[in-house]
Order: sequence, then structure tokens, then C-alpha cells
Amino acid sequence: MTKSVLIVNGPNLNMLGKREPEIYGHTTLSDIEQKCSSHAKELGLSIEFMQSNHEGDLVNTIQDAHGKHAGIIINAAAYTHTSVALMDALKAVGLPVIEVHLSNVFAREDFRHKSYISFAATGVICGLGAKGYILALDALTEIFDQ
Amino acid sequence: MTKSVLIVNGPNLNMLGKREPEIYGHTTLSDIEQKCSSHAKELGLSIEFMQSNHEGDLVNTIQDAHGKHAGIIINAAAYTHTSVALMDALKAVGLPVIEVHLSNVFAREDFRHKSYISFAATGVICGLGAKGYILALDALTEIFDQ
Amino acid sequence: MTKSVLIVNGPNLNMLGKREPEIYGHTTLSDIEQKCSSHAKELGLSIEFMQSNHEGDLVNTIQDAHGKHAGIIINAAAYTHTSVALMDALKAVGLPVIEVHLSNVFAREDFRHKSYISFAATGVICGLGAKGYILALDALTEIFDQ
Amino acid sequence: MTKSVLIVNGPNLNMLGKREPEIYGHTTLSDIEQKCSSHAKELGLSIEFMQSNHEGDLVNTIQDAHGKHAGIIINAAAYTHTSVALMDALKAVGLPVIEVHLSNVFAREDFRHKSYISFAATGVICGLGAKGYILALDALTEIFDQ
Amino acid sequence: MTKSVLIVNGPNLNMLGKREPEIYGHTTLSDIEQKCSSHAKELGLSIEFMQSNHEGDLVNTIQDAHGKHAGIIINAAAYTHTSVALMDALKAVGLPVIEVHLSNVFAREDFRHKSYISFAATGVICGLGAKGYILALDALTEIFDQ
Amino acid sequence: MTKSVLIVNGPNLNMLGKREPEIYGHTTLSDIEQKCSSHAKELGLSIEFMQSNHEGDLVNTIQDAHGKHAGIIINAAAYTHTSVALMDALKAVGLPVIEVHLSNVFAREDFRHKSYISFAATGVICGLGAKGYILALDALTEIFDQ
Amino acid sequence: MTKSVLIVNGPNLNMLGKREPEIYGHTTLSDIEQKCSSHAKELGLSIEFMQSNHEGDLVNTIQDAHGKHAGIIINAAAYTHTSVALMDALKAVGLPVIEVHLSNVFAREDFRHKSYISFAATGVICGLGAKGYILALDALTEIFDQ
Amino acid sequence: MTKSVLIVNGPNLNMLGKREPEIYGHTTLSDIEQKCSSHAKELGLSIEFMQSNHEGDLVNTIQDAHGKHAGIIINAAAYTHTSVALMDALKAVGLPVIEVHLSNVFAREDFRHKSYISFAATGVICGLGAKGYILALDALTEIFDQ
Amino acid sequence: MTKSVLIVNGPNLNMLGKREPEIYGHTTLSDIEQKCSSHAKELGLSIEFMQSNHEGDLVNTIQDAHGKHAGIIINAAAYTHTSVALMDALKAVGLPVIEVHLSNVFAREDFRHKSYISFAATGVICGLGAKGYILALDALTEIFDQ
Amino acid sequence: MTKSVLIVNGPNLNMLGKREPEIYGHTTLSDIEQKCSSHAKELGLSIEFMQSNHEGDLVNTIQDAHGKHAGIIINAAAYTHTSVALMDALKAVGLPVIEVHLSNVFAREDFRHKSYISFAATGVICGLGAKGYILALDALTEIFDQ
Amino acid sequence: MTKSVLIVNGPNLNMLGKREPEIYGHTTLSDIEQKCSSHAKELGLSIEFMQSNHEGDLVNTIQDAHGKHAGIIINAAAYTHTSVALMDALKAVGLPVIEVHLSNVFAREDFRHKSYISFAATGVICGLGAKGYILALDALTEIFDQ
Amino acid sequence: MTKSVLIVNGPNLNMLGKREPEIYGHTTLSDIEQKCSSHAKELGLSIEFMQSNHEGDLVNTIQDAHGKHAGIIINAAAYTHTSVALMDALKAVGLPVIEVHLSNVFAREDFRHKSYISFAATGVICGLGAKGYILALDALTEIFDQ
Repeated sequence: MTKSVLIVNGPNLNMLGKREPEIYGHTTLSDIEQKCSSHAKELGLSIEFMQSNHEGDLVNTIQDAHGKHAGIIINAAAYTHTSVALMDALKAVGLPVIEVHLSNVFAREDFRHKSYISFAATGVICGLGAKGYILALDALTEIFDQ
Repeated sequence: MTKSVLIVNGPNLNMLGKREPEIYGHTTLSDIEQKCSSHAKELGLSIEFMQSNHEGDLVNTIQDAHGKHAGIIINAAAYTHTSVALMDALKAVGLPVIEVHLSNVFAREDFRHKSYISFAATGVICGLGAKGYILALDALTEIFDQ
Repeated sequence: MTKSVLIVNGPNLNMLGKREPEIYGHTTLSDIEQKCSSHAKELGLSIEFMQSNHEGDLVNTIQDAHGKHAGIIINAAAYTHTSVALMDALKAVGLPVIEVHLSNVFAREDFRHKSYISFAATGVICGLGAKGYILALDALTEIFDQ
Repeated sequence: MTKSVLIVNGPNLNMLGKREPEIYGHTTLSDIEQKCSSHAKELGLSIEFMQSNHEGDLVNTIQDAHGKHAGIIINAAAYTHTSVALMDALKAVGLPVIEVHLSNVFAREDFRHKSYISFAATGVICGLGAKGYILALDALTEIFDQ
Repeated sequence: MTKSVLIVNGPNLNMLGKREPEIYGHTTLSDIEQKCSSHAKELGLSIEFMQSNHEGDLVNTIQDAHGKHAGIIINAAAYTHTSVALMDALKAVGLPVIEVHLSNVFAREDFRHKSYISFAATGVICGLGAKGYILALDALTEIFDQ
Repeated sequence: MTKSVLIVNGPNLNMLGKREPEIYGHTTLSDIEQKCSSHAKELGLSIEFMQSNHEGDLVNTIQDAHGKHAGIIINAAAYTHTSVALMDALKAVGLPVIEVHLSNVFAREDFRHKSYISFAATGVICGLGAKGYILALDALTEIFDQ
Repeated sequence: MTKSVLIVNGPNLNMLGKREPEIYGHTTLSDIEQKCSSHAKELGLSIEFMQSNHEGDLVNTIQDAHGKHAGIIINAAAYTHTSVALMDALKAVGLPVIEVHLSNVFAREDFRHKSYISFAATGVICGLGAKGYILALDALTEIFDQ
Repeated sequence: MTKSVLIVNGPNLNMLGKREPEIYGHTTLSDIEQKCSSHAKELGLSIEFMQSNHEGDLVNTIQDAHGKHAGIIINAAAYTHTSVALMDALKAVGLPVIEVHLSNVFAREDFRHKSYISFAATGVICGLGAKGYILALDALTEIFDQ
Repeated sequence: MTKSVLIVNGPNLNMLGKREPEIYGHTTLSDIEQKCSSHAKELGLSIEFMQSNHEGDLVNTIQDAHGKHAGIIINAAAYTHTSVALMDALKAVGLPVIEVHLSNVFAREDFRHKSYISFAATGVICGLGAKGYILALDALTEIFDQ
Repeated sequence: MTKSVLIVNGPNLNMLGKREPEIYGHTTLSDIEQKCSSHAKELGLSIEFMQSNHEGDLVNTIQDAHGKHAGIIINAAAYTHTSVALMDALKAVGLPVIEVHLSNVFAREDFRHKSYISFAATGVICGLGAKGYILALDALTEIFDQ
Repeated sequence: MTKSVLIVNGPNLNMLGKREPEIYGHTTLSDIEQKCSSHAKELGLSIEFMQSNHEGDLVNTIQDAHGKHAGIIINAAAYTHTSVALMDALKAVGLPVIEVHLSNVFAREDFRHKSYISFAATGVICGLGAKGYILALDALTEIFDQ
Repeated sequence: MTKSVLIVNGPNLNMLGKREPEIYGHTTLSDIEQKCSSHAKELGLSIEFMQSNHEGDLVNTIQDAHGKHAGIIINAAAYTHTSVALMDALKAVGLPVIEVHLSNVFAREDFRHKSYISFAATGVICGLGAKGYILALDALTEIFDQ
């Protein structure tokens, strides 16, 4: 049966490619979804792709992943640094998790160096733009095959 | 008139007893609600029991307690450590508050040692599992009787 | 054309004037809205005034300001001190921002001395009660005229 | 056979109800002992109740609990925040421990937020006055019954 | 009788508009004085406007405000972050104080985030350039009228 | 009636003048007691002078001061920096307290800069050797006369 | 020959007894000077008593003490906590120094717990009001007699 | 022309798969080299793969990459957390850098949360075992193609 | 004449071998005393071996060592990390001191990394179980022979 | 035209060579001025040499340097570590600045390791006594010649 | 078969006894090697004794210990406080490790209080000079015999 | 006899002038060596000039300076901030040391503000580019002449 991957996107990522293109480029979150979708197909996976600005929605979606998805890719954006609730949800659902960031958060402001998500993640990929999602799908495939 | 107690539960507590039973046991939040309900009846109290993964919903519910409830029991879970908004809401509503945690948060990770809820609470009960809610009801009864 | 200003109010500000009047006075948020509305009219501005206890709603509203509003006045209340997401939203929308606080947060508890909002704000006005909103409208007018 | 509970009280608790009644009320430690004694009887438990201003006496008493008592309730007062020795004694004796504080120590001075006792305790109850001891007896009963 | 406001300016503000215009603009402290003077006249106030690079002179001037002035506007510049003496002087004189900063000090170097002046101020206005002084006069007028 | 002053000395002060005279001089604690005794007589006061290496004994003695003494002079030595229990005892007994140290503790190791005793003391005298006790008696006399 | 003592008073002490009498009482700095003067006479000493709000004036006065005075009493007020320059001046002049504070600075705000003056002082007397100056004169007499 | 990638491995990675297989598995560094080599071939890249326990050797190799290689993959192991020299070398050579860690260093000891390498890296991949190197090659390919 | 060594044991060491043998083994403090005694005999030394849970008793015993003993071996257990009084006593008595810990305290909880005893000790031996006492006797012998 | 260099000396440097010669040597500030003067002549420069114990005087002098001097040498002494005002003045005046210290401040007390002056200085020379001023003149010459 | 012990010495220990004999004495590293060698013979052990100033050489030597040695004694000198690589190497090789320091590092500068080596060591011996190596051999013998 | 000076250069300084000339300029380390060499000749000194990326090589070279050189100039580059070993080597060799940095390290990243080298250096010169080496030679000459 086709395995499914949940791809969770946190606050303000819906603005991607629409505002400040000189900084963040012209790729939109919808572009990323399409890239993920076609790459998943190549890997024999299906995806569910969602974004929300509500911490509670993100928690709900992660909780519901149990039984529906085989792994989670999460770019929690600003909630990465402040949300114990997301960390707890990821730990509770017990699936392999890959944390993704578009930019290299470790080379930005100090408060972006700390991630609660990392405590619940198998791996972290950051600084590689949209490509990070693709690599995360590859990584999950490898984990599924173990 | 029967006094009512609002029992507020924070993020991921809806997963209780459903995931990781080897760690958290088999008691569900619904079991806790039933225990609270029947113990409240013995004490001559009624309860309103709610859970949400949204910080905003929890704030709304606490604000609405004014005039409806005589006291609040709150297990804010992950928001305990990050939510100034919940603390402000509890202070604003001005009812007696008992903070409850299922596990002994003071013996867990460092970031769980700090509670914003405590600044607004009369008392704190932690580490006693579902029994903590029952004891919190007893404590509120004593406070109501003073 | 009339310029519009978005006025964003964070958690628990809906309780203003309703609870603890001995501390916070009798002015309600609705009173503040009316004062802002009439002062805006004098300045030749229109306003959109909103309040929410949900961090995600506040982020959504800020994101939608692009193309609709010429500036933002924000009293993020408790989220001031904890929300990287609001800071990111304000930066993304790229409008002039005035941060307002009713009380002098710098003379209160230590955790209220830190503001993520400030990193995205042009100016900060605090400790002047409802008058702070009026001054913020004046400040935005000056910025619009530059 | 009747199970016995050791109730340990730390420095200055012998002054309770005798000095500063406007702050701490008129309940004396002897009153608390009587309340504990009669509540224990209802629960089918016996108690040993002691107080000392000497850290060493408290350590000795805890060590002797092994084989004599089935659980420990401890209000270590000022030693809560400074005594690694009490923590080590509690861990060594290996009985279930409920930590009690009359006031909500988490809402007082910073140096009272840290408890060495918590690292050795199953549960913590604070801010509920003498009632905290009663609830601790209830909690131990539940633990004995598991 | 016409109320008088003391406007105190700290070290290096006499350089304003004379050096680094590309950063600080062309407005001089004398321009600000004139704007304050004419705005005060509109509000029915008189002002005393002074600047010094000596911490002691600033303390002296503040002490002398008692009986002569009804309020103080202070931009303590560099002394904001280091002068306990100015804070003590402002507290001793007991008048309403509005703290002003031309730039948003909370978005600059870390050592500029801490203000001793704030502990003695009713309100703080920063990041709004010379307009900040005008708004401070408005704020004092409101305070005088209460 | 003659007022009495309790003079409390903490750990290792019994070694004074007996060990390391090249550092601490040849004055013994007994010498200090005699100086205090004769100076107290001049001031019309009586004294009780005690020393112990046990924190618990010091707490006991302070608790017993109520009703027997009009003021307390305390040199808590090493316990100055670690004993919350002594601070609590001094606060509970409610008498005027003068804290004395033979050496200037603020110019020694960092861990000696912090005093729990100071939070319960009216005044502090340090660095003046045995003379500090005499000055403390003078200070208490002034306080008694107010 | 009569020995002379320099008594140095820092910023805002000239306000003593003139403002906020409900907090600081009615004793003025001039009263303290007179008390010091008459007590010095009894001790066979003369005094020079000065106050300034300028850190530089205080440094100058201390430097000039060499050859004119036998000891220094200093209440540096707010400069206690911020002035390395005063500490360096006191060390350079090499006379015995007694640091005095009217209130118990160690029981006030955190930033008042740190004293640069202490590193250059033989002894510290605080919390004893004007009496502290008198005791400091006594202490210097003892030091002169050694 | 075939682009070349330098793959740098830091201290103790030569032990991989040889010691503690129950923790680190049976994959040796030589296995990783082979996987990288064949994957590089598929991508049309060549690789130079090196390991050293000497910080200086690693610095030398990185410096020599200029003109020889188009990108660098670095797993600096223990030097990640302590070597400013490696960071400086990476910055000086000016090539795109992908930082790789076999385990999720952000979920290990505190001192492993800080990476000097990150300040010089475009992207970071961690917690994905040997697969991380493969993904880093993919990421570099994407960067080369931009 | 036979030199004597005082061997001081702090709180809870009397529990050794009696509780938690799976962690601490079956060696009791009495076993350690016998090993020390017979090894001391081989070295031509006599020993005095004591244990107390009272900080004050330990201070007393150390003070009395002067004139009776040639060196001190101390395992202060929990008081290692909190007792300035023991450090002061050891410094006052002026004998060579070897600090011993059964376990490697530097690889345990953070609060066990700090030792006040070390500031007064010639050498430290930890992590070597009962053997540590034997090695400490050897070390003292070497020091006596110098 | 001859270029001029302003040489600014902070608090207590006027005491140099007059007090504590065993520590600071016999060179006076006047000697340093003469050495600077003659060395400047050799370099074809003129100097203005000043010292003040007033932070405000130092700020004034630095501000006046604009248009009169081509560079500044500053030994801010104690104000190095506390004066944001001097830093701001140096930045405002925009001339090349060499910071000089007679002793190696980085090997002295911790609070002397931090320099606000360094943020405004091109270069720092410390620990080389009076020679440091001479080398600073050499360094400025090189900067002027670029 | 004779068991072998690797004795590893870090940077600058080759200078021992050659420079600063007034501080470190006249014992050279070669003397220590000879003492170790003859004591090992008595214990029925052989030793390999090495020193290097290169962190990488020390790592290499430790890695090679596997299969050749039964235990390691390490005095990592300056690398004790900075080398995560040595800690990782010691952990990887999996032999019993005794950490030795000639002086009592815990009574020296703050940065010498932290040891990465301790996290990989069974025991620590410090402050006992060359004798520490001999005791470490005794300790290893005991460990081998278990 | 001609005195010799050892000039030690740390990691990545061999890249100087070869990479990033827009930042670091076109001066190479070889250029600096030539300038030092000819300036030394003028001063009647000879120099040995070395660079290494290996911490161990730098330690070795410094150790060998004893008996060969009269002073050391060291630009430890990245090792400045991390190498206790270099500090220990410099202290052991006991020669006068001048620490040089090309840029003003105190105005760069925080981790570059801390220098272990400074604890072993007579003087520090930074921010003056290659000229810093020349001034260091002048400084050593002055020291040799004392």
C-alpha cells in the first residue's frame, strides 16, 4: 500500500514568494507542495500538505496523523522556537519526523538557534530552501525501508 | 445553589491513554472527566470539563468562567511553560485556581520547571496522576467553605 | 484616497474595563475603538479595529493587511513577550508598525521587558493608557506624510 | 496491618500560628498534627509526626523510616531550597514521597522556586495550607492501593 | 496659570543634525526645541528646554524642577542605560515623566534595551524621531487634565 | 527594665584568635563577648552571647528570643550565604536585627557577596572587626530609643 | 594635631528630608552634617563635609584628600553601583574608607546589591540612617588608634 | 568539466562501525566513502574524501580546496563545537558548504547544540546517518545548477 | 610517634551498602572503616573514623582535629556542594586534606559538579569507590614524608 | 598643514606617578604629555593633551575635535567600562580613534574586560605603559597616510 | 599475560621540571615515566607512556589503545577543558580511564573547573603531583581485578 | 649580541591577501614577514617568523623559544579564543609576549572578545593591520631596554 507523508507548515509560510521576494525568492508554498507531490509520486509515496497560522491547528493535524501517515515533515517556522505543544504532539504520535527550515536558522538571530521540534525529530535539514522538503522525503523513504 | 467548577485541559491531553500507554497508562481524559464528575457530585458541585489544543480557546473559556463558575482547575500541559496569555486570563477572571499536572514536572526537563500558571494559582498539585484532579476538587471545596 | 490603519489587539484586551476596574479603570476596548475612530476621522484616516485571543487569528489579520491598510497599530498584550510568529508576520507585511501598551511594561515583571514586536516596529508607545492609541495614530499620520 | 506514614516538618514550622498570625493564620503545627491524625484514622493509616530545625535530625528521621513507614509526607520549609542531603536521604530510603508546602512557593521569591526535594518526590502539593497535608494523605492512600 | 514642562536632553544630543546626517537626518536639537515650543503654546503650556553632557547637570536640573514645572520629558540618550542617579532624581522630584528616544532603542544593541529611566517614567515613546517630543507633550497634557 | 540583646555567632567563630592569628588576629570570641558585655552595661543593656556550629541550634536560639530579647545581633559566618532557615527564623521572631561581619565580605570571594541574613536585617556592619559588634549595640540602642 | 575626616555624599543626597519625607524622614543632609560635626568634636576630630551630583567632583574631592585628611566616609548613593572611577580614586588616595548607606541596600532592587565602593572600603555600614555616619566616625577613630 | 566535491570528516569518525556497533551500527567511514563515490558518479560529480583527527590537517585541506573543488561537505564531529579555526577556514575558501552530522546533535548534550561550522554553512543536515552525506551531495548539485 | 588521620564522612553515608545495593554495591561504611584501619596499620598510621548527618557535628569534629591528627580525609557527600561552613572549618584547622567521593561526581547532576571542599583540599580522588579512601591514605603518607 | 591629534585622558590619570609609585611607577601624566609632544613633532604632528575626571568634560572635548583634529587617542580609564556616552561621542565625531590602556586590562578584574570605547575605536593598544601612547601616534600617522 | 596501561600526557607536560621549578618543582615527565614504570612492574603491569602537544596525536594514540591496552591514565592538561574530541575518543575505545591532574584544578581559574575528560572517566585524581599517577595505577589494578 | 624575536602566526593567516582581498586587503603574510624583517633590522633585532594551522605546532614552537629568543609576538588568530594550551605554553616559556590582531576583535562577534592569550601577554595591539606587528617590535625593544 502507498505510504503517506504528512507535511506540516507553520505560521507565515503561506506568505512565501508573495512578500519580500528579494529576500525569500519567488517560490510559493504552493510551488513547494507541487514539487513535493511529484517527487513523492516518484518515490511511491502520497502526501498530505497543510499550512496554518494556528498552533492549535498544527497540533490537531499532527495528532490525527496516527494511523493515516507513515511519517511527518515539519517546517514549524516561528513556532519552532516557542512551541512545547508541537514537540509534545510529535512525541505523542510516535512517527518518524524530519524537521525542515528553508534558511539556515543557526546563522540567524540567537532566539532562532533553539528548536523544541528537534527534541522530537529524527533528523534536521535546514538552509537548503525548497530542496530541503525533497531531501526530507528521500530521508523518510530510507527510514521506511529500514 | 450548586457551585460549578471549570476544569480546563491544555494541548495533547486529548491523546491521554490512547498513545504511549506504557508511559502514560490507560486512563483517558474521558475517564478523568467521569471521575471528576462523580467526585464533584459527592461534594455537591457541578463541573464543566473542556480540552483544547488552541491557546486562544483556553483563554476564551477562562474569560467566560466569570459569573458561571466558582473556581478553576487547570492542567495547561505544554502551555504551562510558555503562555503569558493564560496567566493573564486567569488573573483577570479572579477566581480561585488550582494548577494540576499529571506528572511531577519539577523532575522533568528544565524548561518544564517554569510555570506561568503558578503566578495566577492559589495552589499546585503535581505528580499524582488523575488523582490530582480529585484532590483539586477537594481543595476548591475547602476554599469555597472558608 | 482615505488611508486605512489596522489596529490589532491581543489576548485578554477584550476584558478591559470589565474586570478589575480598580486596577485597569473603566475604559473598555470598545471605548478605545470609538476614540480611535473619531480621532482617525479628524486625521482623515479610516480604521479597522480587531481583537482576538488566538495568536493565529492575529497573524492572519496582519497578513491580510497588505494592500488594504497603510499602517498597523498593535497592542499584542501577552503575545508581545512570546510570539515570534507575530514578529514574522509584521516583518512580512512590510507596513509601518507602532507598538502600543496601556501600562509601562518596562516597570513590570522581568518577562514583560522583552518584546518580539519591537524588532518589527518603527516606534513604541507605552504607559499612556488609551491615549497611547491616539498618539500612535498621530505618529502614523506623520509617517504617511513623509 | 495498619500502614504508617511519616510526616516530616522542617525549620521554623514550629513557629506556625504563634508568630505573624496576620500572615500565616492561627493554625499551629499541633493543629495540623491533629487534623492529620484523625484523617489518617479515617483512611486506616497511622502517622508519625515530627518537626526539627536541624537538617541532620530530619535526615536521621527519614533514614529510620525504612521498615517502619510505608510513605513520607515532607514539608522541608527552608531546607527545600538548600538541602541536597535531604534529597539524598529520601532517595536512599526509597518510599513514596509527597512534598507539601503551605504557601505557593512558586509565586514567592526566586530562590524559593527551586526544590531539591522535588527530585525525590512522587508528587508536590503547595499553596493549600493545612489542607495540603490532608490531600497528601489521600494521595498516599491511592499510591498504597495501586 | 500656564503649566510648564521641563524637557531634558542627555549627552551628544547637541550633535544632532550636525554630524552623520545620512543616519540621523538634518533636524537639530534647536529645531526640536522650536517645534516643542510652538506645540506647547498651542497646548497652553510653556517649556524649559535644556541639554547637557554632564550627568550631574542633568541631575541638578531635574532636582530644581520641583515647584517650577508640572511634568518632565526626558531623552537621557546614553545615560538611559547607565545612570541610576538620574532615575533616583526623577523619583525624588515626583513629577509625571515621559521618556523619549528618537530611535527604537529596543531594536538596537543589547545594552540599549535596558533603561533605568523607565523605572521612574509614566510612559515611554521611542522610534518616532522629533515627533516623539510632540506626542510626549500631548501625553503630559492628558495627564495634567486628569 | 533592662533591655536584653541576643548576640548570635555562627560556625567556626569559636576558632577566632586560636587559629591563623596572622590573618584573623589574637582577639578571641570570648574577648568579643567581654567587650560586648561591658559596652552593653554602659548602654544600660544586658546581653546573651552564644555560638554554635549547628544551623539548627542557631535557628532554635533565634526562635526563643521572642519575649526574652529586644533585639538581635548576628554574625552568621558561613551560614550567611547558604541558610534560608536562619532568614526565616529572623523574620518570624520579628525583632530588630543587625548583621555583623568581622571582615568586609563584599571584597572577598563571590559566593560571600550574597547574604540571606540581609533580607531580614535592619542594618549591616562589616569589615570593622570586633568593633562591629560594639557599633551594632550602639545602633540597637538608637533603634530602641525611637 | 586634630585629625580630619572627609565625608563625601553622592547624587540626590542634597534632596534628603526635602522630598518624600514619608519615606526618607525629615532629617536633611545639613542635619547629618551637624550631627557629624558635633560627634567629631567629641572624638577630637575635625570634618570636611561635601555633596555633589557630579561624579567628577566626587573624584576630584577624593583625590585632594591626600595630605589633608586621615580617613574618608563615603555615601556614594547611586554612583555606588555604577562608578568604577570612584573606586579607583579611593584606591589611589590610599586612606581608610568607611562606606555608608542610609537604607539597607542589600534588601532593595538587585542592581543596588553590587557596590564598586566596597572593593576600596575597609568597612561597610548600611541600613542605620543618619546613625550610620556617627558609627563610621567611631570606626575611623578605632582605626586611627591602632 | 566534472565538478569535484571535498568531503571532510573530523575526529573519531575513522572509528565508525568499528567500535560500539550497538550504538553507531556497522557502517564504516569507508562504506560511506563508497556510497558517496557511487552517488557522486550518478550525479556527474567527483569527490575527494578525507578524515583526520588533527584540527590543523582539516584546516589545511579546506584551504587547499580553493580552485580544486566546487563545494564542501563537512562532518566536523567533535570540532564542530569547539573550532573557530575550521569556521574561519570555511569562510576564507568561499565555497558552498553543507554541514552533516550522523546523529541529531540538537537532541544530545548541551555542548553539542552549538556549532561554529553552521556560521559558515549554507545548509545543515543531521540525524539521518550515512544518508545525510548522500542528501548533501544532492543539495550541492542543486546549488551548482543555480 | 604514630601519626593519626581523621576520616570524616558526611550525610547518608551510614546508609551505604544497606539500601539500593544494586546501585551502590554491598560495601558498608563499616567495611570501609575496616579497610582503612588495616591499610593505615600497614602504613604505620592510626585513624579516627566518624560519620554524621549533622553539618554542625562535622564542623566540630574537624575543628577538634587540631593537635590530634596529622591529616584529614573527607567525603562530605551532599554537604560537599552546599557547605561553606565545612570549607571554612577545614581552612581554619590547617591540616592537609584529601577530598574523596565514591562515585565520579563530575559525571552526575550539574549541582554535584561544584565543591566547596575542593577550595580547602590538597587533592581530590573520586569515582574509585572504597579504594578511594585507601589511595587517600597513601597520598597523605606521601605528604607526611615530604 | 600640520595635522593635530587630540589625546584624551580619563579619571584618576592625573594621579599617575604621584600615588602608589610602587605599582604604577614614577612616570606622571605630564611626563607622558611631553613624550607625546616630542614624538608628535618628529612625526610632523601637533597634539592637544587633556585630562578630566568629568565624563561630561570628556564628551565635550571629543565633540569639539571635529574640524580641529585629525585623530583621537583616548585612555578613558575607569569610564572605559561604564560610559556609553563616550562611545556615542567618539562615533559621532567620526575621526580615527586609538584606544590606549597603560596596563593589560584583559588580565585584570572581570569588569575591566568590557570596553564601550572599543566599539568606536579603530585599534586598541594596552599593557605597554606610556609607550602605548607613542605607538598610538605611530599608528595614527600610518592611518593618516593611507 | 601482563596487562598494559596506556599513560597519555597532554600539552606542555614535556616542559615539566624544566621551566618554573619554583612553582612546579624539579620532577620531569621522564621522572614520572620512570616512577610509573617501576611501580607498574611491582603491580605486574606494563606501561606505554606518551606525551604530545597535538590534540590529534592524543586522539590517535587513544584510538590505537583498543586491543593493546587494558586501561588508560590520562593527564590531558590544557585539553582537559577544551577537547570534546578527546572525550569522544575515550568513550569510543571503551577502556577504564583514570583522569589525573598534578595540581588541584578545582582550586585554580574558573575555566579549569570544567573537564570534558571527566565525562569519559571512571575516576579522577588531582592535586597529588606525580603520586597521582602511581595511585591511578593502583586504582586500575583494582578495577582489573574486579 | 643581536636579540631575536619569535613571531608566531595561527590558523588561516597563511590565506591572508590571497582570499577575500575586498575584506582583508592585498597584504600577504609574506609581506608582513618582510616588513617585520626590515623593521627588526633597523631596531638591531633578528626575527624568526612562522605560521601553522596546527595548535600543537604552535605550542612546540613557543616551547622551543626558550634560550633562542628574547621575546614573542603572537597573532594566534582563531586559537586566541579557544586554546588554553597556547596560554600555558606562553606562561611556561616565560618571555615577554605581545599579542597582535589585524582587526579590532573587540568590535566583532562575541566569541572573539575572549582571549586566553591575553592572560599570558604583557601587551595587546589590535585593529591596526600589519602595522600592529611593527608596533609590537617597537614595544619589545622598549621592554628589552628596561
